[in-house]
Amino acid sequence: MKAQIISIGNELLIGDTINTNASWLGQFLNELGIDVTRVHTISDEKELIMETVKQSMNESDLVITTGGLGPTHDDITKTCIAELFGVQLIKNQEVDDYVRDLFKKRNLPFSESNAWQAMVPENCEVLFNKAGTAPGMWFNENNCFLAVLPGVPYEMKYLMKRRVASKLGKEVDDIGFIHTKYLKIAGIGESTISDHLLGDLSDYLNEHTSLAFLPSFGQVTLRITGKGSSKEEAEEKASKLAGLIHKKAGSYIYADSKEMTLSESVGKLLIDKGLKITTAESCTGGLISSTITDISGSSEYMLGGIVSYDNSVKTGQLGVLQSDLDSVGAVSKEVALQMARGVAEKLGSDIGISATGVAGPTGGTDEKPVGTVWIGFYGLGQHFAVKAFFSKDRLVNKERTTVIALEIVRRVLLGIEELPYELKKETL
Amino acid sequence: MKAQIISIGNELLIGDTINTNASWLGQFLNELGIDVTRVHTISDEKELIMETVKQSMNESDLVITTGGLGPTHDDITKTCIAELFGVQLIKNQEVDDYVRDLFKKRNLPFSESNAWQAMVPENCEVLFNKAGTAPGMWFNENNCFLAVLPGVPYEMKYLMKRRVASKLGKEVDDIGFIHTKYLKIAGIGESTISDHLLGDLSDYLNEHTSLAFLPSFGQVTLRITGKGSSKEEAEEKASKLAGLIHKKAGSYIYADSKEMTLSESVGKLLIDKGLKITTAESCTGGLISSTITDISGSSEYMLGGIVSYDNSVKTGQLGVLQSDLDSVGAVSKEVALQMARGVAEKLGSDIGISATGVAGPTGGTDEKPVGTVWIGFYGLGQHFAVKAFFSKDRLVNKERTTVIALEIVRRVLLGIEELPYELKKETL
Repeated sequence: MKAQIISIGNELLIGDTINTNASWLGQFLNELGIDVTRVHTISDEKELIMETVKQSMNESDLVITTGGLGPTHDDITKTCIAELFGVQLIKNQEVDDYVRDLFKKRNLPFSESNAWQAMVPENCEVLFNKAGTAPGMWFNENNCFLAVLPGVPYEMKYLMKRRVASKLGKEVDDIGFIHTKYLKIAGIGESTISDHLLGDLSDYLNEHTSLAFLPSFGQVTLRITGKGSSKEEAEEKASKLAGLIHKKAGSYIYADSKEMTLSESVGKLLIDKGLKITTAESCTGGLISSTITDISGSSEYMLGGIVSYDNSVKTGQLGVLQSDLDSVGAVSKEVALQMARGVAEKLGSDIGISATGVAGPTGGTDEKPVGTVWIGFYGLGQHFAVKAFFSKDRLVNKERTTVIALEIVRRVLLGIEELPYELKKETL
Repeated sequence: MKAQIISIGNELLIGDTINTNASWLGQFLNELGIDVTRVHTISDEKELIMETVKQSMNESDLVITTGGLGPTHDDITKTCIAELFGVQLIKNQEVDDYVRDLFKKRNLPFSESNAWQAMVPENCEVLFNKAGTAPGMWFNENNCFLAVLPGVPYEMKYLMKRRVASKLGKEVDDIGFIHTKYLKIAGIGESTISDHLLGDLSDYLNEHTSLAFLPSFGQVTLRITGKGSSKEEAEEKASKLAGLIHKKAGSYIYADSKEMTLSESVGKLLIDKGLKITTAESCTGGLISSTITDISGSSEYMLGGIVSYDNSVKTGQLGVLQSDLDSVGAVSKEVALQMARGVAEKLGSDIGISATGVAGPTGGTDEKPVGTVWIGFYGLGQHFAVKAFFSKDRLVNKERTTVIALEIVRRVLLGIEELPYELKKETL
C-alpha cells in the first residue's frame, strides 16, 4: 500500500509552524507497513488543494491531509474536498451537539465559527474527534482512501490512533513487511561511530537490510530496516544487523528503541541500583532537571535540584566559595565541583551533577569563550569535572550540556572509564 | 521569484527526523520576498532525487535541497546532482585542507569518509562551510539557481545566512514586496480571540492584506501579511491591520515580533521594573526556570530556582508544611502558595512562582486527575494560586503550565486583573 501525505497551510511554507505532523504520520504508517512515498506541503489555496488531492489520489492507495479544519476564515479544506467530489456540506448532528455541550461545560461563549465545525461533506464518514472540536473525515472514492484530519498535532494523532488505524489494519494484512529497529548512542560523533566503532558493514547491507545514521545534538540514532515477505523474515533481517552492531558498540548503546530517551535510560539504571540524583544548574537553567523529569516515574530517583543562576544562590544554597568566584570565576572547575557536591549534600542524594558555563551568545571572554561549559559529577566515590566546548548558540549549548551530563552519569553508573567525546576527568 | 524546497532523506518520510529545515527556509525566503510554492519531501533514492531536482528547476527560479551530504554510505545527493548535470566529482583542495586541519585540532581520527567531504561536482561553486565538514554547492544552470545544502540545521542555516543570502539579494531587488508582522497572545483560545477579542475583520481583509491564526500550546500567533508593489506599500498594508488589532487586543498582546517569546516579554517587564524572580517547581521539573533562562541577559532578573520534586525538598528547602502534605497533598492550593512564597523568601526575590501538579500519564486520582495543576504566585503584595486543568500528556502539561505561569506573571506586572483562560485567583 502506497500513501501520500498532504500538509496544508501557509504557516508551513512560510515557516511559522514546523511540520511535525508529516513525520509523525510517516512513522505511524511505516510501522503499519505502509510506504509513504511523498509529502506535499502546500498553501491553503483552493485550486492547489483540489489539484494536489486529486493527483495524490490517482497516484496512491491512501491519502492523508492535515490542516485547514479550524474555525477561522483561512480554514478551507473541507470546502475544497466537497467541491472536488461535487457534494454539499451538511450538518452532522452528533458533532453539533458535542461541540455545543463542550463549550457549555467549559463555560466558554459559543459562536457561529464553532457551529461551522459540525458541517461535513455529505459523502464522508465522520471521524468523531473527542480531542477537539473539528471532526476528521473518511472517504473511499476512486479506489483510494482519503482521510481528512485537523492540523493540531494532538487531535490528528488522536484520530489516527482511535479512528483511522483500525480502518487501515484491514487493508494492510497481506502486504510486504518492513521491520525497523533503532539503537541510540550519545557522546560519539557520527563518523567515529561509522569508521571506528562499527567499521565496514557493507557485507551486511543490501536491498533487504539497511542502516541509516540520524545525528542530533550530541546523539546519533542508528535506524536498521529489514524487509521481507513475512513479518518474521523482516524482523530476522533487522535483528541480525542489530545484533552485530550491539556486539561492536556494546554499552555505548544507551537505548534499543526509538522511544527510549537518554534520560529514561539513565533513570532505569538509577532505579536498578536504588540511587537518588539531584542537579545544580547555572548555564542550563533547569534544563537538566526538566529533562530528567520528562520521564514518568522519575520521582523514584529524582529528588530535585537547585538552579543557581545568580552567584548569591551558588554561595547561599550550594556552598560555593566566594573566594573561588572571585579568583577563578563562576565558569570554572572549582565551582562545578562545589556545585555538584553541594546539591548532593544539601538535598541528600547519592549523585549530584552540575553545569556552569557561558551559554552565550554574549558574555564570552578570550579565556572563556561562549560555549565553554564545566560539568561536575559527585557521588559513588568519585568527584570530578570536565571541560567541554560547544557552540555560539545559547539553546544548542543548553541542549548539548544536558546530553553530555546525562551520558556522563550513564557511563559512571555502568563503570565505563571513557567519557563522552573523550573528555578528561579533572579534580582539584 | 518562485522557489521550491527539496528535503532529502528517508528519515523525514519515516518520521525519524522532523523537517524543521523546510520551515526555517520558508521563513527565510519569505522575508526576502521569495515565494516558496512547494516543499517536496523525498527519500534518498537516486532516480527520485534526480527527477525531483530536474522538475523543480523547470518550474521555478530557485531550488534548494537539504540533506544527503554526510560522510556515510546513505548520503548520495552530490553524486545524483553530478550525474544530473553530466559532470565529474573533483576534489576541492581548500575544503580538503580545512577538514583535515579540523580533525587534527580536535584530536579526532581522520578517515576516508571524512576525505569524501571535499569531493564536489566540477560545475559548482563551493559554499565554504565553517560550521561543519560538508560544503554547500551553488549552481546556475538552465535559468535556475540551485543551492545544495547539508541537512544538519545549524550548518544549513550558516550557509544560507553567510553564503546564499548575498547571492539571492542581488536577484530579488525588483520583485513584488511582501511584509509580514506577527502579534502573539497567550492564555486565550483561538476562537475567543477571533470572535470576541477581534470581532469581524472581514472589511479589512483582501488580496493585499491577510490574517492567519497559528495556535500552539496555550499561545496563538497572529500573522499579518501585506503585499504591495513597493516595500513601503506592503509595510503600510500590514501595519494598518496590525494597528487595528493592537487597538482591539491591547495588552493581551505580549509580543509584536515572531522572535519574541513570552519568556522574553516577561523578562523585559522585570528589567523595566527592576524586579527579581525565582521559581519553585514540582511537576514542571525545572522547565519554567529553563524557559526563563532561555533568554540571553536573563541573569539580570532571574536569581534561580528550586526543583522540589521530592516532598523532602518541598519541606526542607521551601518551608512547605508536612501537615499540609499529609492532609491536602502535594497537588494543592496550600502547597502551591507555600512553594511560591518559600522560594521568594529563601533566595531573596521580589516574585516567586510555583507549580505543582499531576503531570501524568499515571498518578491521577478521581479527585486530582492527570492534568490537574496548581500554579502559585507570591510578590508585589499578592499571594494567590490558580487551579488549571490540562491534558493526559506529560510533556504537554509541562509546556502549558509553563506558558500559563509566565502569562500570569506578565499580567500581574501589567496590572491586568483577568487571568489567562479566566482562571480564578484563590487564597487561603
